[in-house]
Amino acid sequence: MLKGLMQDRPLLVSSLIEHAARCHPRAEIVSRTAEGTMSRCTYGDLSRRSRQVAAALLALGVGPGDRIGTLAWNGYRHLEMYYGVSGIGAVLHTIHPRQFPEQLEYVINHAEDRYLFFDITFAPLVERLAPALKGVKRFVAMTDRKNLPLSDIPNLLCYEDLIAEANPDFEWPTFDETTASSLCYTAGTTGTPKGVLYSHRSTVLHAMTLCATDSLALSANESALLASPMYHVNAWGVPYAAAMCGMKLVLPGPVHDGRSIYELLREERVTLALGVPQFWSPLFQYLEGMRRNPRKELCLERVVVGGTASSREFVDKLASTFGARVTQVWGMTETSPIGATCPPTAMHADASNVPSEQRGLKQGRPPFGIEMRLVDDAGREIAHDGCTPGRLLARGPWVASGYFKSPEGSRLDADGFFDTGDIATIDADGYLQITDRAADAIKSGDDWMSSIELENAAVGHPAVAEAAVIALDEDGRRTHRLLVILPRTDFDVSRDELLEYLAVKLDRRWLPDDVAFVEQFPHTATGKVRKGRLREMFADHRWPTDLQSQPA
Amino acid sequence: MLKGLMQDRPLLVSSLIEHAARCHPRAEIVSRTAEGTMSRCTYGDLSRRSRQVAAALLALGVGPGDRIGTLAWNGYRHLEMYYGVSGIGAVLHTIHPRQFPEQLEYVINHAEDRYLFFDITFAPLVERLAPALKGVKRFVAMTDRKNLPLSDIPNLLCYEDLIAEANPDFEWPTFDETTASSLCYTAGTTGTPKGVLYSHRSTVLHAMTLCATDSLALSANESALLASPMYHVNAWGVPYAAAMCGMKLVLPGPVHDGRSIYELLREERVTLALGVPQFWSPLFQYLEGMRRNPRKELCLERVVVGGTASSREFVDKLASTFGARVTQVWGMTETSPIGATCPPTAMHADASNVPSEQRGLKQGRPPFGIEMRLVDDAGREIAHDGCTPGRLLARGPWVASGYFKSPEGSRLDADGFFDTGDIATIDADGYLQITDRAADAIKSGDDWMSSIELENAAVGHPAVAEAAVIALDEDGRRTHRLLVILPRTDFDVSRDELLEYLAVKLDRRWLPDDVAFVEQFPHTATGKVRKGRLREMFADHRWPTDLQSQPA
Repeated sequence: MLKGLMQDRPLLVSSLIEHAARCHPRAEIVSRTAEGTMSRCTYGDLSRRSRQVAAALLALGVGPGDRIGTLAWNGYRHLEMYYGVSGIGAVLHTIHPRQFPEQLEYVINHAEDRYLFFDITFAPLVERLAPALKGVKRFVAMTDRKNLPLSDIPNLLCYEDLIAEANPDFEWPTFDETTASSLCYTAGTTGTPKGVLYSHRSTVLHAMTLCATDSLALSANESALLASPMYHVNAWGVPYAAAMCGMKLVLPGPVHDGRSIYELLREERVTLALGVPQFWSPLFQYLEGMRRNPRKELCLERVVVGGTASSREFVDKLASTFGARVTQVWGMTETSPIGATCPPTAMHADASNVPSEQRGLKQGRPPFGIEMRLVDDAGREIAHDGCTPGRLLARGPWVASGYFKSPEGSRLDADGFFDTGDIATIDADGYLQITDRAADAIKSGDDWMSSIELENAAVGHPAVAEAAVIALDEDGRRTHRLLVILPRTDFDVSRDELLEYLAVKLDRRWLPDDVAFVEQFPHTATGKVRKGRLREMFADHRWPTDLQSQPA
Repeated sequence: MLKGLMQDRPLLVSSLIEHAARCHPRAEIVSRTAEGTMSRCTYGDLSRRSRQVAAALLALGVGPGDRIGTLAWNGYRHLEMYYGVSGIGAVLHTIHPRQFPEQLEYVINHAEDRYLFFDITFAPLVERLAPALKGVKRFVAMTDRKNLPLSDIPNLLCYEDLIAEANPDFEWPTFDETTASSLCYTAGTTGTPKGVLYSHRSTVLHAMTLCATDSLALSANESALLASPMYHVNAWGVPYAAAMCGMKLVLPGPVHDGRSIYELLREERVTLALGVPQFWSPLFQYLEGMRRNPRKELCLERVVVGGTASSREFVDKLASTFGARVTQVWGMTETSPIGATCPPTAMHADASNVPSEQRGLKQGRPPFGIEMRLVDDAGREIAHDGCTPGRLLARGPWVASGYFKSPEGSRLDADGFFDTGDIATIDADGYLQITDRAADAIKSGDDWMSSIELENAAVGHPAVAEAAVIALDEDGRRTHRLLVILPRTDFDVSRDELLEYLAVKLDRRWLPDDVAFVEQFPHTATGKVRKGRLREMFADHRWPTDLQSQPA
């Protein structure tokens, strides 16, 4: 091989903030803080304070590869940690605060976090956890002295005091781009949390993808509300990509009620918002009771949603309420997370007869860098014909190869593909449609039947607030499908009414075997339905004798 | 350091075309061929035929690192060479056909091209050159048997015959991403051509940049006329980025007359065109004589121009004729070429009082990956204040470190920066403005005086077709500036008239010392004015006694 004669420059997280400081020094980061105030700063400020964080960490004795935990909302200090920690070759371990205490304890100890930084909201939580966190040398409250929590947290430091004297002209070190930059544990719907260890290379390449026009099209011309939490999957990589393109960031902190979000959208002239579909519920509820004119008062043009598939109703509601177009993204902790995006295409329109991929209902196409493969149970490749589902495998520079400290080592198959655990179809133009998690998939003969399509059809009924399909065992096989429904308050709907409604929309063999109603859904920390819990709840379900389908 | 646990996937040119084949198999490539026909194919076809090219090259004995020359227009077979050659670890050497024969001979022999592929247009040229090209084993005419040129070219092969039997399912090899992928010699305005050796890594990272919204915003929703030649700087990297995003490509081949281009724009519903400003002259001339309505007949929305700074008149003319917005790009062979882009910003409008960076007149801001520095003659850093010019240095993963087979080795300074040879200012928001090539720069006291601003002002006069400012020696120093003018046919203008016109537009000390008229401009192969030649022509210029400025 002949080596090219181009410069050997590593892709490092620190170069993102330095680029922003050089080319977008006045672009803003607006935060609602844990202290309840609004804060405005610029990328110029962020660069200086990140360097101070870096210098302060080194002074504390933090070395390359050390893990630094954060329990924090979306805010400027958390952003400083994103750059300050990774920039010195240490590893930012963002911790999902909405886990059970035993899970929190597990991930912090498994990660071997040496320092734990937290927003003051979490002071009581940290106080409870502290005795079990033997590896944590110091706890740092991400606030100033006057807001320092009065608590029994041992070895407590104050963030602002810590960085006040540190050198704002600290020079970022250069190192290999495959060095670990951050760590995030998958919440998972079942099992022990597993740590995904991102690298500088994967983070920067992923950020470049977020800036692509056909991906999330992040840009210096946008004002972006980042609702996706910075404590999970690096907030979809947006904190890095925003610095890359100099995009104004609006960080909502802990306050997600409808009114507060509406005010943020309005006052910060937000053009783009990113988050899970559930984020929008309080806002829709707020607007229902108000005589407001969002299309006139706001300038929201685009909404990026991920985490779960969006329904046609949701897409239409965002369009009718805000005049906003939806970009659907698909991914998971192990894919950084962007594995596919479905931006509005030229043909995307209000017309109801456009194909579903153009309405943003399919998960979309993989960006360059991500390769996808479908396989059957025996691992044989399945054609990309848009109708044959198979297990979805993914390969690419921002896809995980294994989990942190996992005794199993690499999780890749012989061709280097990672098994996502999803069941999906891919069509001839590369459009991906997730039909199930593998654990919830059910076969009718050789066909996988999609529970997601059934769920989407069910939430189309005006009385249905939330729907989940679970596959239940009989004779050790998953053969029966139960549609579990959370009805909307003040609405009434019967099992038979729902089945009739669905029979019009779906092929007969796709209908559920029965319908059950609940008063509350069990959710994971990231807002996904805990289907494992549902399966436990309905393990003894008494099936009707008039089963709609007779599985083989 | 702790290594991340992400997949170790190299960034390779072959993965670009494979991505297009998987996700955009039906997107089109429309070519006007050297044979005079129109040809349509898809990325699916391109993938298959590129694999055939690869397999055929291996069968010919081509090995890793071997250089394969091309003398070809923008067309689908050239595109197949882009992927087929680099995909096997060989090096695509694109050759600029509009050089003097001795330069052509020099670059082909210096590159040690083992095979030379050419469009039939160039058969006479190849025939003349062949005897001097001792290292070339075979010559391949990029055509089919029935169009094979009748000539005395030795060892002639026919492209279509060569690949017809080759395996379309050939599997691309995997190798290190720093491997050389292509080679392009700088035409340069003076001196011996120098070879820039791109790598797979630099090419893929650069292509990702072209897809960024704030860069060239390439997208699957565009139909793009690629006028920038594929024989120079990889046509700005667009052939790679187009596959990355699945963009329709319209390749004009050898025919650039106004009428042909207009028909291409119209029939292929071109939304985006990329090329040097000179490309547009025949089209403007064609439209002057015609009763056509381009704004109605075409859907041209964006024009990307590079190579030279565009004037306000040019930007306004594109807007008024087509309703198209201009994205200015700056770069050079050594920067792949994108070093800065100036896309229309949110504030970009028809209003004449918007700052010049928002009208696309500044060269723009560097994308993430490119760092810029200004230094004075002693190598000391100069502030980015938007008014102090200095030598422009650049650093980044797609900037050259040195030249192919250069005995001098690395051209980088101690901090890893490459000297671009341009004089520029950079403002506090990172906007770059090139004021001069270092060789044409002239100082007034401590100030560099911009010849580019003077040239732009001069072409604003209705009688001026082209203008160039050269600095001429007196007492061994560049102290006098001569404005050389090519008048428009049927227009008449005197030296004094021009000086009066300029005196209204520019500060007095920026005015030239004299004006001279020529009937033709000497140009480089890439359309730049050969200022070195102009300096020779006017070496004995008799300066007027009423010099406008009295340099120190």
